[in-house]
Amino acid sequence: MSEQPDTTEFDAAELDAAALDAADELAACRKNFLLDDGTVYLDGNSLGALPRSVPARLADVVEREWGSLLIRSWSESGWWDAPERTGDRIAPLVGAAEGQVVVGDSTSVNVFKAVVAAVRIAREETAAGRPARTEILVDAATFPTDGYVAASAARMTGAAVRAVPAAEMAAAAGPTTAAALVNHVDYRTGELHDLAAATAGVHRAGGRIVWDVCHSAGALPVELDASGADFAVGCTYKYLNGGPGAPAFLYVRRELQPRFDSPLPGWTSHRDPFAMASGYEPAEGAARGRVGTPDILSMLALEEALGVWDGVGMEAVRRKSLALTDFFMARVRAHVPEGRLTSLTPEAHERRGSQVSLLCEGELEAEAERVMAALHERGVVGDFRRPGVLRFGFTPLYTSFADAERAAAALGDAVRAVESER
Amino acid sequence: MSEQPDTTEFDAAELDAAALDAADELAACRKNFLLDDGTVYLDGNSLGALPRSVPARLADVVEREWGSLLIRSWSESGWWDAPERTGDRIAPLVGAAEGQVVVGDSTSVNVFKAVVAAVRIAREETAAGRPARTEILVDAATFPTDGYVAASAARMTGAAVRAVPAAEMAAAAGPTTAAALVNHVDYRTGELHDLAAATAGVHRAGGRIVWDVCHSAGALPVELDASGADFAVGCTYKYLNGGPGAPAFLYVRRELQPRFDSPLPGWTSHRDPFAMASGYEPAEGAARGRVGTPDILSMLALEEALGVWDGVGMEAVRRKSLALTDFFMARVRAHVPEGRLTSLTPEAHERRGSQVSLLCEGELEAEAERVMAALHERGVVGDFRRPGVLRFGFTPLYTSFADAERAAAALGDAVRAVESER
Repeated sequence: MSEQPDTTEFDAAELDAAALDAADELAACRKNFLLDDGTVYLDGNSLGALPRSVPARLADVVEREWGSLLIRSWSESGWWDAPERTGDRIAPLVGAAEGQVVVGDSTSVNVFKAVVAAVRIAREETAAGRPARTEILVDAATFPTDGYVAASAARMTGAAVRAVPAAEMAAAAGPTTAAALVNHVDYRTGELHDLAAATAGVHRAGGRIVWDVCHSAGALPVELDASGADFAVGCTYKYLNGGPGAPAFLYVRRELQPRFDSPLPGWTSHRDPFAMASGYEPAEGAARGRVGTPDILSMLALEEALGVWDGVGMEAVRRKSLALTDFFMARVRAHVPEGRLTSLTPEAHERRGSQVSLLCEGELEAEAERVMAALHERGVVGDFRRPGVLRFGFTPLYTSFADAERAAAALGDAVRAVESER
Repeated sequence: MSEQPDTTEFDAAELDAAALDAADELAACRKNFLLDDGTVYLDGNSLGALPRSVPARLADVVEREWGSLLIRSWSESGWWDAPERTGDRIAPLVGAAEGQVVVGDSTSVNVFKAVVAAVRIAREETAAGRPARTEILVDAATFPTDGYVAASAARMTGAAVRAVPAAEMAAAAGPTTAAALVNHVDYRTGELHDLAAATAGVHRAGGRIVWDVCHSAGALPVELDASGADFAVGCTYKYLNGGPGAPAFLYVRRELQPRFDSPLPGWTSHRDPFAMASGYEPAEGAARGRVGTPDILSMLALEEALGVWDGVGMEAVRRKSLALTDFFMARVRAHVPEGRLTSLTPEAHERRGSQVSLLCEGELEAEAERVMAALHERGVVGDFRRPGVLRFGFTPLYTSFADAERAAAALGDAVRAVESER
């Protein structure tokens, strides 16, 4: 992935956090979040922190737009267009030109729309006499919901799912492949997959590809337009800080939009919703991905939250993300006794997302949940995934090198504390 | 529908609004809403008014639960269980015992889950040698999204949709009927359909029935358990006042839950979500209707909004709703010149929901949108539906008889004003 900068020219273990923070080009972004300085929050890969301006904006949405203007707000407060407008705020963060991203529903529901639509397009494109496209390839290490939903999409389109490691997706695609569903960053290990290469491989086989960018959107450059990706689905409550369970987004490549045949054709994606026509005629553009009435409170909180990206370049985010994760990995080696933790996250920059996943080894594996609890007691928040995985998310807009140093030191303490209780 | 009280013993036209308001057993409920006393809001059938306690609760959810507790709130603030907990708050309002209602997603998405699941159950129950169940009956006057989604469900299950008037659903169901999808109250005319009779008719034919209770939940008694309904879907932003685009709810009859085979199996409806297992094993109970990560900001706003129902009986709501709509219809006859408006809403109580829909006649039909605009200028908010329909929703918790009187008088003025501009 040649577009990724190779930035870590320092030996992270030898530098101190204060010097790195002093040189941090994104340091000023932290003030845009409401954070407790007593806590090191390394779980932004699960739930992003609260942007400072969201409470006041949401109060205004509730009290004035809902409470006073009521139904008039659908037009006067811009509620009706919020799914496309918010989508256009996300678009530049995922390498998409405007008009291709729409916000609404959950990630799971959007995976269903995208996978079914991808299968339909691939079949429509397959010439008579060619093998039937009966297969949906799914990233073998996928976040579970993608696999469950892909299986349902397969069942309902007469296809079958085959699990394939993400790195082998391009090679695995063949003449019976209708669609592939791949996670850009593995939620468990933090491994980054090559979006352009897998897309090209699936396209060579005549299939269509759906990317799950939940763990990359807002964490690193996602080149949807440039890579030729067909569909992408992402969540907004991780690195996009939209709030718990905030609505997800769906990217449909512009050239596919006229052929995007959604399995969830709701009234708000109708060409003329207020005609209340009995027959469905889909809208043009990103709006075709809409289904029911948009969830305004959550959507407008998200829209406000996206303001923290104003003036922030994703290349700078990537530089800091890699520096933070390099530094944290080095400081973990310095603070934690040897042989206790193994990194599941690749060392190579081009294969790393913005989290570090550490596997507890030996006797510590069964104690991993207690290690994470001991870390929480020390004011460091990461999360635990069975079996034995400690996950730490690094969110360049608000995580400092001092946070990473403190977390690594606390992790050493926590491991020793748990071991001393045996 | 013998369970509906026949309450209007007065001649509404002869009574004055003040006397009716003085005798209103629900008058005290209005103070639980933030309303502008200068406006008569008769659009609660589209977007319910703001319950007074919601802004402070939502501020606490955002600032403390999200901002301070962050990821801990999934357990400590009860976020994870909110879909079932909020469902159990709605259950008594729709005649359901606990454990059968779950909140999440939009109405459209829930219609998809319910219709596909209904088809699957009906087919599974059909003995070998019997005709294939290839038909989904859909209320011919349905809200559009139901029809579009039913068509998609039909396409994806190898069935076909047939449109049937709601009142004829029981008679239309036959040996090839897999499922029927019916609106309890027609969104356009306000006509109330007989839930128990249609359910019994579809069951006699061996099919399963899905009710759309968007325009009845919170407006009148909905006897889901007692009627034997299989599935129901409803929205929460109309008579339940949950806020714009608030998440919808799904009722799955308890005895069907073990066979509820959702087309949208997301990770949060897995039996053990945090096992992150690659194979889907559905949860028991209402949770099986979940899909992705629940939308917490909107869901907790809704949960708080449901507090306005504490101590309110649905029979009292129904008594007031019928009295209000009787009164309004009578006062419209008194205030509006003859021959201009025809009620699309049935006079008979057992066929009336909680709205009044008036069709503009003759020359006025083309001017209906201007009539509604003139009403808005006079501080009365209803809504307009093409072609020529003026809709007025009556929400017994906050609409007064004085509101109805003022609206009828303003409607007379508005009609005269529009006519004078010809």
